Amino acid sequence: MAHDFGFTLIATDGSARLGDITTTHGTVRTPAFMPVGTQATIKGVHVSAVRASGTDIILGNTYHLMLRPGAERVAALGGLHRFMNWAHPILTDSGGFQVMSLAQLRKIDESGVTFRSHIDGAMVVLTPERAIEVQNLLGSDIVMQLDECLKLPATRAEMERAMRLSLRWAERCKRAFEDAAPGRALFGIVQGGDDPALRVENARALVDIGFPGYAIGGLAVGEPPAVMLNVIEETAPALPTDKPRYLMGVGTPEDLLEAVSRGIDMFDCVMPTRNGRHGLAFTRHGAINLRNARHGDDPRPLDETSPNEAARTYSRAYLHHLTRANEMLGAMLLSEINLAYYQELMAGMRAAIRAGSFADFRAATRETWERADIPPRS
Amino acid sequence: MAHDFGFTLIATDGSARLGDITTTHGTVRTPAFMPVGTQATIKGVHVSAVRASGTDIILGNTYHLMLRPGAERVAALGGLHRFMNWAHPILTDSGGFQVMSLAQLRKIDESGVTFRSHIDGAMVVLTPERAIEVQNLLGSDIVMQLDECLKLPATRAEMERAMRLSLRWAERCKRAFEDAAPGRALFGIVQGGDDPALRVENARALVDIGFPGYAIGGLAVGEPPAVMLNVIEETAPALPTDKPRYLMGVGTPEDLLEAVSRGIDMFDCVMPTRNGRHGLAFTRHGAINLRNARHGDDPRPLDETSPNEAARTYSRAYLHHLTRANEMLGAMLLSEINLAYYQELMAGMRAAIRAGSFADFRAATRETWERADIPPRS
Repeated sequence: MAHDFGFTLIATDGSARLGDITTTHGTVRTPAFMPVGTQATIKGVHVSAVRASGTDIILGNTYHLMLRPGAERVAALGGLHRFMNWAHPILTDSGGFQVMSLAQLRKIDESGVTFRSHIDGAMVVLTPERAIEVQNLLGSDIVMQLDECLKLPATRAEMERAMRLSLRWAERCKRAFEDAAPGRALFGIVQGGDDPALRVENARALVDIGFPGYAIGGLAVGEPPAVMLNVIEETAPALPTDKPRYLMGVGTPEDLLEAVSRGIDMFDCVMPTRNGRHGLAFTRHGAINLRNARHGDDPRPLDETSPNEAARTYSRAYLHHLTRANEMLGAMLLSEINLAYYQELMAGMRAAIRAGSFADFRAATRETWERADIPPRS
Repeated sequence: MAHDFGFTLIATDGSARLGDITTTHGTVRTPAFMPVGTQATIKGVHVSAVRASGTDIILGNTYHLMLRPGAERVAALGGLHRFMNWAHPILTDSGGFQVMSLAQLRKIDESGVTFRSHIDGAMVVLTPERAIEVQNLLGSDIVMQLDECLKLPATRAEMERAMRLSLRWAERCKRAFEDAAPGRALFGIVQGGDDPALRVENARALVDIGFPGYAIGGLAVGEPPAVMLNVIEETAPALPTDKPRYLMGVGTPEDLLEAVSRGIDMFDCVMPTRNGRHGLAFTRHGAINLRNARHGDDPRPLDETSPNEAARTYSRAYLHHLTRANEMLGAMLLSEINLAYYQELMAGMRAAIRAGSFADFRAATRETWERADIPPRS
């Protein structure tokens, strides 16, 4: 029989946590990185390669999918898992973030947000109840509440207003989710901008409502990294230890390492695929810009010890050529290689937490990044 | 020990021929379709999928590779096979066709062609001797002579002049190729436009020089299909039966079927990948335009009997969505599916020739295409 949704905290090491999230579509090992499948595809990567990278769960974007192909259409075709041929867990966001960043002519009030589709200009209404309905139609395993996500910097008054509105929407989402199919979970989202007091107040209020998991939203939206880490440090202790904690839209490999060390369990970010499309590789040796002319004659692979075959096989010279020639295969290989590195990093963190050596792992990883890329043979 | 280059004619059925080309990188089963790896990549398809489609040999473009990344650079990196991670046979064209179609400010005289690179504007000289040198540097298994490829229609005087120049270049290419590494082959190219008499004269002259294989060039450049088939019918009998015959730059599935029935052994064409990037699928049921709105709700795969997993797995609705959303994965899946269909068609033709049932196979295949796509379930 399929599992109900659940979270098991297996071990801790400092503030870092090792766990398992169980869903009806399988288990998610945490700390977990979720590749972003914006439009029902991880851009440029076959699902078989997404899985082979060590990915347990992917993220789908409610905003994009509700506009095209449409949630009702996906439901009629058997749900998002079948539609995109991904039989494993899926988390969907609520659409709130993209409404703020992509949609035009948006109007926000107590009822929800009204916006003009960036695809065909149609007026669309997204209420907390509709956000849940759309995610239920998509059939995601983890559903996110609708929230208002501010760009930072913002005034304290703005942050507090958005936080309180998001909290009222959290309650409405929870009520709307009561009719959802069993075995799935709705997460609440902590808002409050860069103000630790607002964040803690909001976290406590969400815990009072009660969710099977909590996200920290509204970060990585323009604030300095130190501000983000400070908000995490202040907020995480206000969240229950027996529920997963998800830091939304983050981040660089360094962000993941630092956030895990502060008690975060889940992440999503477009960076591995977006940077791959722009010729940037994430590796054990740090970030490498393949567009740089110095790679043109370099026969070495990106990382001869990578678990990913492409990272071990193709020369930097070939990846440079593909990137310069704007060949799809360059974006395809680098997106896959980056995804594999992100998942290798997550696996390394999980093993280190299990072994009680997370601090050593963190220091060694940072040192390897900082030593950076080995110069080419002369 | 690696094989020397050779061709074995295994069976004939009418004018259709079944054979094996042996090269130092492996055997090519003919009739063979060669996917085009313009810039050292089959656009949008991983080499593992190219191989899995049943591809024995790919084509590389001398013109593109000599301009970027450069033939000397590819040679220093171990040759084209290693560069693009394709351990199997490679044929390279001579660059002549692309010089005519892509380069600017070209000047053609007895010595060769001078042109301005479409990439960086540099002046480049391509002589018959340099065309051979570049292909030797790339390390291809089958090397093509430099020829002048006219657009049709052209006057008889133009066609004859270009044919005679190409013939003199064939002799120079053969001399230049004498120093090439053993186990590789240089093919001559029959020109002569749409004039059967010129074609036959040119074929006989090339056979007098003597090559291990012969191409028919300068077709599929604007002439009606019937003209192309007529030129093939007139030219093929003038070529030796014990050498492979390669029809350059052709074509649609129908072109392949008709040309094989007239004695052609090898083909190359960008159509499977180019059309895949534009949302067009080649299938047993004929061509299907996935951009068409009627596919939006269609849960059926493109072909539930295809040997290709993607063609059996993904719904037309999903492929429609990816194509409309301009997602890379749409181009990736359709390019792979199209390549798989082309190779399925070639495998079907080979099996039919072996069984002596080519005429039946040809009729049945055409009938299935003409019955076209099954309407969606209502």
